[in-house]
Amino acid sequence: MNPQQMEQMGQFRITVWEEENFQGKRCEFMLECQNIMERGFHKILNFPYPEFQGQQFILEKGDYPCYQAWSGNIGYRTEHLLSFRPIKCANHSDSKMTLYECEDFQGRKFELCDDYPSLQAMGWCSKEVPSIKINSGAWVAYQFPGYRGYQYIMERDRHQGEYRNYNEYSTQAHTNQVQSIRRIQQ
Amino acid sequence: MNPQQMEQMGQFRITVWEEENFQGKRCEFMLECQNIMERGFHKILNFPYPEFQGQQFILEKGDYPCYQAWSGNIGYRTEHLLSFRPIKCANHSDSKMTLYECEDFQGRKFELCDDYPSLQAMGWCSKEVPSIKINSGAWVAYQFPGYRGYQYIMERDRHQGEYRNYNEYSTQAHTNQVQSIRRIQQ
Repeated sequence: MNPQQMEQMGQFRITVWEEENFQGKRCEFMLECQNIMERGFHKILNFPYPEFQGQQFILEKGDYPCYQAWSGNIGYRTEHLLSFRPIKCANHSDSKMTLYECEDFQGRKFELCDDYPSLQAMGWCSKEVPSIKINSGAWVAYQFPGYRGYQYIMERDRHQGEYRNYNEYSTQAHTNQVQSIRRIQQ
Repeated sequence: MNPQQMEQMGQFRITVWEEENFQGKRCEFMLECQNIMERGFHKILNFPYPEFQGQQFILEKGDYPCYQAWSGNIGYRTEHLLSFRPIKCANHSDSKMTLYECEDFQGRKFELCDDYPSLQAMGWCSKEVPSIKINSGAWVAYQFPGYRGYQYIMERDRHQGEYRNYNEYSTQAHTNQVQSIRRIQQ
């Protein structure tokens, strides 16, 4: 374990239960976990997306007694949490991102450093955001206003904070529809 | 129409379609609507909660093509939007609320003027909030972290901003579990 990992250990802790309402096998993690099936969580079988693939959900500190508590309100409902990792660069009080009107950071731009439950209410004229640069901190972008629908986690420390088009938002992103954006709190 | 209503008309506009993806009968409103069934939306029949009762959903400016887009991620899914009203006192840049450790504004308190995706990460030691006072603006409190689960709209201009126990949060509130809170943006 290197010094950076040691430092992380004090900061992050996630306790995972195999069944709803904190029942069944229990496991505690202080570092990332690429595939929880390798830790003896045998009730989860043949699910397609370990290793940080598939839908993303941000889990801030708190209790999540069932899958509805962490999943979004979308048709496809993820009942299995297969991998997780700390968002190291999250900083609620020092977060900055830039939205661009076109792909590859072209066109008009707009800088954010606060949460926006409606980008259109803020003055962004479209329901789409073609490219995004994260200047500091970590953010979640959502398909619908009010932090609903598909969610995309965007960090300064991944992709060098650069998301040139919606394919880079997530492996699951099918459009560049983004209508609300907020900072991640550790 | 009184002067106050005239003033409101410039500020609020909601366009409602009878079917998903902006299809079917269409109606535009600039004031509140207690029961949309009275406006000829006949596909909605015998639903139990018009007149601002039932589950609440906050709709900030943007596109909501289907019921998943505005509903929360809870077991009971509301497919029908029966009544709506403007949140007149919403003010994203001037919002303040106070959380209390006990009912009736007793016990230790904590003042908020920013969005908190996790109250526990902020230092609130419980997953419950027994009473809340809205000092200014309008807010949404959520059952789970990250703005998920049941949601309760709380306004300075309703109940004099005073929510003494969870029964006053909403007619649908069954517990005082509140794990994230955010300001409403007009």
